[in-house]
Amino acid sequence: MDISERIEQSKTRIFKAVFPNTVNHYDTLFGGTALSLMDEVAFITATRFSRKRMVTVSTDSIDFNHPIPAGKIIELVGSIVKVGNKSVKVQVDIFVEDMYSDHREKAICGAFTFVALDEHKNPVPVL
Amino acid sequence: MDISERIEQSKTRIFKAVFPNTVNHYDTLFGGTALSLMDEVAFITATRFSRKRMVTVSTDSIDFNHPIPAGKIIELVGSIVKVGNKSVKVQVDIFVEDMYSDHREKAICGAFTFVALDEHKNPVPVL
Amino acid sequence: MDISERIEQSKTRIFKAVFPNTVNHYDTLFGGTALSLMDEVAFITATRFSRKRMVTVSTDSIDFNHPIPAGKIIELVGSIVKVGNKSVKVQVDIFVEDMYSDHREKAICGAFTFVALDEHKNPVPVL
Amino acid sequence: MDISERIEQSKTRIFKAVFPNTVNHYDTLFGGTALSLMDEVAFITATRFSRKRMVTVSTDSIDFNHPIPAGKIIELVGSIVKVGNKSVKVQVDIFVEDMYSDHREKAICGAFTFVALDEHKNPVPVL
Amino acid sequence: MDISERIEQSKTRIFKAVFPNTVNHYDTLFGGTALSLMDEVAFITATRFSRKRMVTVSTDSIDFNHPIPAGKIIELVGSIVKVGNKSVKVQVDIFVEDMYSDHREKAICGAFTFVALDEHKNPVPVL
Amino acid sequence: MDISERIEQSKTRIFKAVFPNTVNHYDTLFGGTALSLMDEVAFITATRFSRKRMVTVSTDSIDFNHPIPAGKIIELVGSIVKVGNKSVKVQVDIFVEDMYSDHREKAICGAFTFVALDEHKNPVPVL
Repeated sequence: MDISERIEQSKTRIFKAVFPNTVNHYDTLFGGTALSLMDEVAFITATRFSRKRMVTVSTDSIDFNHPIPAGKIIELVGSIVKVGNKSVKVQVDIFVEDMYSDHREKAICGAFTFVALDEHKNPVPVL
Repeated sequence: MDISERIEQSKTRIFKAVFPNTVNHYDTLFGGTALSLMDEVAFITATRFSRKRMVTVSTDSIDFNHPIPAGKIIELVGSIVKVGNKSVKVQVDIFVEDMYSDHREKAICGAFTFVALDEHKNPVPVL
Repeated sequence: MDISERIEQSKTRIFKAVFPNTVNHYDTLFGGTALSLMDEVAFITATRFSRKRMVTVSTDSIDFNHPIPAGKIIELVGSIVKVGNKSVKVQVDIFVEDMYSDHREKAICGAFTFVALDEHKNPVPVL
Repeated sequence: MDISERIEQSKTRIFKAVFPNTVNHYDTLFGGTALSLMDEVAFITATRFSRKRMVTVSTDSIDFNHPIPAGKIIELVGSIVKVGNKSVKVQVDIFVEDMYSDHREKAICGAFTFVALDEHKNPVPVL
Repeated sequence: MDISERIEQSKTRIFKAVFPNTVNHYDTLFGGTALSLMDEVAFITATRFSRKRMVTVSTDSIDFNHPIPAGKIIELVGSIVKVGNKSVKVQVDIFVEDMYSDHREKAICGAFTFVALDEHKNPVPVL
Repeated sequence: MDISERIEQSKTRIFKAVFPNTVNHYDTLFGGTALSLMDEVAFITATRFSRKRMVTVSTDSIDFNHPIPAGKIIELVGSIVKVGNKSVKVQVDIFVEDMYSDHREKAICGAFTFVALDEHKNPVPVL
C-alpha cells in the first residue's frame, strides 16, 4: 500500500449513543467523555496507519462548538492529516445526529499528534 | 431515500482498543463486554435506519469463534439484514485486527431483532 | 459430589439495583448491560460447576420479554441445564422486582454454552 | 409474611468474578470496589426486607481479613441482623472461592444501618 | 522530614462533580461510590505518608450525615490521625459544596486503618 | 472576596492511583483517562471560581511530556490563569509521584477555556 491508501484504510469511526452514564448534570455529554473517546479514536487511527507502537505527545487546540444533549447519537471520525518522519497528526471530528430525524452536524473537533516508539521506547520512523 | 439507501447509510461501526479494563483474567476480551458493545452498535444501526424509538426484543444465536487477546483492535459492524413491517433484524460482526500487522479476521457474530414503538409504547411500522 | 449436587451447588445469583448508570435514554435498563451481566453470571455458574477453565462459545436466542425501568431491582439466576462431554449449557433468567412491593416477574432469559480448555487451550472434559 | 419470613426472603446475594477492572496495582481486589459492592448488596437487602425507601446512615467497623487475588470468584451475602422501629442493620459477608477447586472462605465482613424515609424524607417505621 | 511534616505533606484531596453516573435512583450520590472514593483517598494518604506497600485492614464506623444530591461538588480529604508501629489510621471527610454559592458542609466521615507489608507480605514498620 | 482570593480558593486538586482499569496495553495511563480527569478538574475549578453555569468551549494545546506507568500516584491541579469578561482560562497540570519514594515531577499540562451561561444558555459575565 502507498501512503494515500494507508491514510484511506486507516480512517477510523466510533458511533456512540449518548446515554445517562456519559452526561454531566446539565444533561449534555460530559466534555471529559468526549475527550476520552477522541483520544481512543486518534490512537486507533494512528496505530492502524503505521502499525507501530504509537504514543500521544500533544493535542492542538480542541473546539467544542456546541453542547451535545442526552438522547443523541454521536460519530467520531479519525483521519491522518499529516505524516512526518517520526510523527503523525490525526484529525478527530465528532458529529452529532438526531435519533428521530436525519439531521447531523459537526459538534467538536481537534487534532492529536503521535510518535512511533520501538521496544526500548526510542523514536522510530512512523512508516 | 429508498430502503436500500437507508440500509446502506445506516451501516454503523465502532472501533475499540482491547485495553485491560475490558478483559477477563485470561487476558482476553470479556464476553460480556463484547455483548454489550454488540447491543449498542445494533441499537444505533436500527435507530439510524428507522429513525423511530427502537427496542431490542431478542437475539439469534451468537457465535464466539475465537477469543480476542488484550492488545488487539476490534471493529464492530452493524448492518440491517431483514426489514419486516414492525421489526428489523441487525447483523453484528466483530472483526479483530492486529495492532502491528494488517492481519484481520472475523471473531464474533450474531443478530439482534428490534421493534419500533410509539410514545405510548405501542408497536408501529418501522418505516 | 455427584452431578446433580454439583448442578445444585453451582446455581449462581446476582442482584442489582437499576441505577442511572445502567440505563438508556428511555430510562430502562440498557440491553447491553443486561447481556454483560448475563454472560458474567453464566461464566461463574459454568466455572463453579466444572472447576475448569471455561470459555463462552455461543449463546442461544435471548428473549427480552419486557423493558426494565430504572428504580427496580433485578436478580440474575444462572443454572446448569445440560452437561455434555466437553461443553455445558447454562440457562440465565433475569427477574425484575419492585422496590416497594413484593411483585416479581421474569423479564429476560437465554442460554450460554461453554467449553472447558486446558492450559494449552485444547478442549478437555468438563468434569 | 411475619418478620422471620421477611428476613429469610430478603437475604441477597451477588457473585462476581475478580477481573482486571476491579483490582489495584497489587493485583488484588481494590478495597473501594469491595465497599461499593457491600453497600449495594446491603441497600438491596434492606429494601427487599422493608419495601420502603431506605437510606444508609452508618456502617459499623468493616474488617478486611485477607486480600482477594485477581482470578478468584467472590460472593457477597446480605442478611438482616437487627430490626429496630425506624432502622435495620444488614450484615454483609464476602466469601472468596477458588475458580479451580471447591475451596471457599470468608474474606471481608461488616454491617450497614439503614433508615426508612417517606416521600418528604421524614423517618417512618421500617415495617 | 519529621513525622509532623510527613503528616502535613501526605494530606490528600479529591474533588468530584456529582454527575448522573455516580447517583442512585433517588438522585443522590450512591453510598457505594462514596465508600469507593473514601478508600482510594485513604490508600493514597497512607502510601504518601509511609512510602511503603499499604493494605486496608479495617474501617471504623462511617457516618453518612446527610445525602448528597446530584449537581453538587464534593471534596474528599484524607489525613493521618494516628501513627502506630505497624499501622496508621487515616481520617476521611467528605465535604459537599453548592455549585452556585459558596455554601459548604461536611456530609460523610470515617476512618481507615492500613498496615505496611514487605514484598513477602509480612508486616513491617510504617516508617 | 476579591478576584485574587477567588482564584486562590478555587484551586482544585484530584489525586488518583494508577490502577489497571485506567491504563492502556502498554501499562501506562491511557491518554483518554488523563484528558477526562483534566476536563473534570478544570470544570470544577471554573465553577468554584465563578459560581455560575460553566461550559467548556475549547482547550489550548495539551502536552504529554512523558508516559505515566501503572502503580504511580497522580495529582491533577486546576488553577484560574486568565479572567475575561465572559470567559475564564483554567491551567491543569498533572504531577506523577512514586508510591515508594518522594520523587515527583510534572507529566502533562494544558489549559481549558470556559464560558458562563444563564438558564437560557445565553453568555453572562463570569463574575
